[in-house]
Amino acid sequence: MSGRLTVVGLGPGAAGQMTPEAQAAVAQADALFGYAPYLARLPERAGQSRHASDNREELQRAGAALDAAAAGAKVAMVSGGDPGVFAMAAAVCEAIETGPPRWRTLDVAVVPGVTAMLAVAARAGAPLGHDFCAISLSDNLKPWDLVEKRLKLAAEAGFVIALYNPVSRARPWQLGRAFDLLRAALPETVPVVFGRAAGRADEAIAVVPLAEARAELADMATCIIVGSAESRVVHRDGLPPLVYAPRSAGPAR
Amino acid sequence: MSGRLTVVGLGPGAAGQMTPEAQAAVAQADALFGYAPYLARLPERAGQSRHASDNREELQRAGAALDAAAAGAKVAMVSGGDPGVFAMAAAVCEAIETGPPRWRTLDVAVVPGVTAMLAVAARAGAPLGHDFCAISLSDNLKPWDLVEKRLKLAAEAGFVIALYNPVSRARPWQLGRAFDLLRAALPETVPVVFGRAAGRADEAIAVVPLAEARAELADMATCIIVGSAESRVVHRDGLPPLVYAPRSAGPAR
Repeated sequence: MSGRLTVVGLGPGAAGQMTPEAQAAVAQADALFGYAPYLARLPERAGQSRHASDNREELQRAGAALDAAAAGAKVAMVSGGDPGVFAMAAAVCEAIETGPPRWRTLDVAVVPGVTAMLAVAARAGAPLGHDFCAISLSDNLKPWDLVEKRLKLAAEAGFVIALYNPVSRARPWQLGRAFDLLRAALPETVPVVFGRAAGRADEAIAVVPLAEARAELADMATCIIVGSAESRVVHRDGLPPLVYAPRSAGPAR
Repeated sequence: MSGRLTVVGLGPGAAGQMTPEAQAAVAQADALFGYAPYLARLPERAGQSRHASDNREELQRAGAALDAAAAGAKVAMVSGGDPGVFAMAAAVCEAIETGPPRWRTLDVAVVPGVTAMLAVAARAGAPLGHDFCAISLSDNLKPWDLVEKRLKLAAEAGFVIALYNPVSRARPWQLGRAFDLLRAALPETVPVVFGRAAGRADEAIAVVPLAEARAELADMATCIIVGSAESRVVHRDGLPPLVYAPRSAGPAR
């Protein structure tokens, strides 16, 4: 019995953005666990079982993967992007803390990946070029008041703000409310990058001023980067604009 | 004349954590530009020139690379980690905005990579599991007062805080001051992860409570992750602890 669980980040979706380490971890697994659309990215292999789940069953999914590893399997739990950013690594740690003692002796590893905000930023220029934060708009697991508090303090701090999980069928109004809050705190010219499926065939990148940012510009596959008051937009004839947050900052600029 | 400039993220340092897209961008370049230790990671290739520079010459380095691309070369500008996080992509955008008009017509692309905080987080569990921010402690390009303001607001917001560029010969006291500020705002039991050279042969990961966090535990190659009041440490017999930020948050926990 030498089971193990590796929590693997597949990156944003393009094959060229998945690390060799992640590819090897998937190839070596006896069993793959994960949210169905992430498993669907990976080719079927003989002798490798697949255990797809819904995206709301994270703790149960973690427990099932840990049970399989405890029974001796080499298990890979896959996440899109990086598994440590609003994804499965925290659910696995929580399951280990709250689950049966035998899970604490397991060989558990995390393989990092390129998270969505980095892939979106790369397509837009360098919008995360100075201090920044990442906030999930999902209020499944935290009160919405806390999201509002964090948005206000992030704007006051002058952070660039990356928004994950901006909309879903269960989360229809939160993004519009977030933009309203940010409009009250930031100049209306601040650039907002909507990055959908960055690096994939169906990629769509849009840059609009905060005054024109609307929830309808986003869907479940979108990561949004809201600039700071320091952020710059460089217009180029016949090419998309470059958005960047300058390395220097402060009133002197 | 069909020059281009690709700003490439090499990842944290391990070969297995450099994406295929980054490998291809480096392989296809006529000329490599970058900070000398990053260039040193890449094998020499016949016909490929190398232009190493000091780490304080970012804007000049960007200009030299843009000039080479404007002259027709396929140029790769390399950064450790991700080029959009406290690295060269913002300097390239700034050079384009402030430089000669011919630079605005160039084919410029950014290839993302695994940034240091993700590699460190992966080795520790899931310390970035809920909302988080990334702050550079370098005050070369922003006033130190702004760093202090951001640290205080980040602690008030309950963000996990990743600290980049924590110490250098020119920056001896800033990290100690940052820990003092955070100790005034957060419980002394909050876990602090010191991640040095994550994923490389000389990797060293240490976890200490905020009460015991000292600047001497870090060097230039260290990325530090300071937990929130919600962060958890899972102790395991004979294995390193798992540090994670739970997906749920708020007073109810």
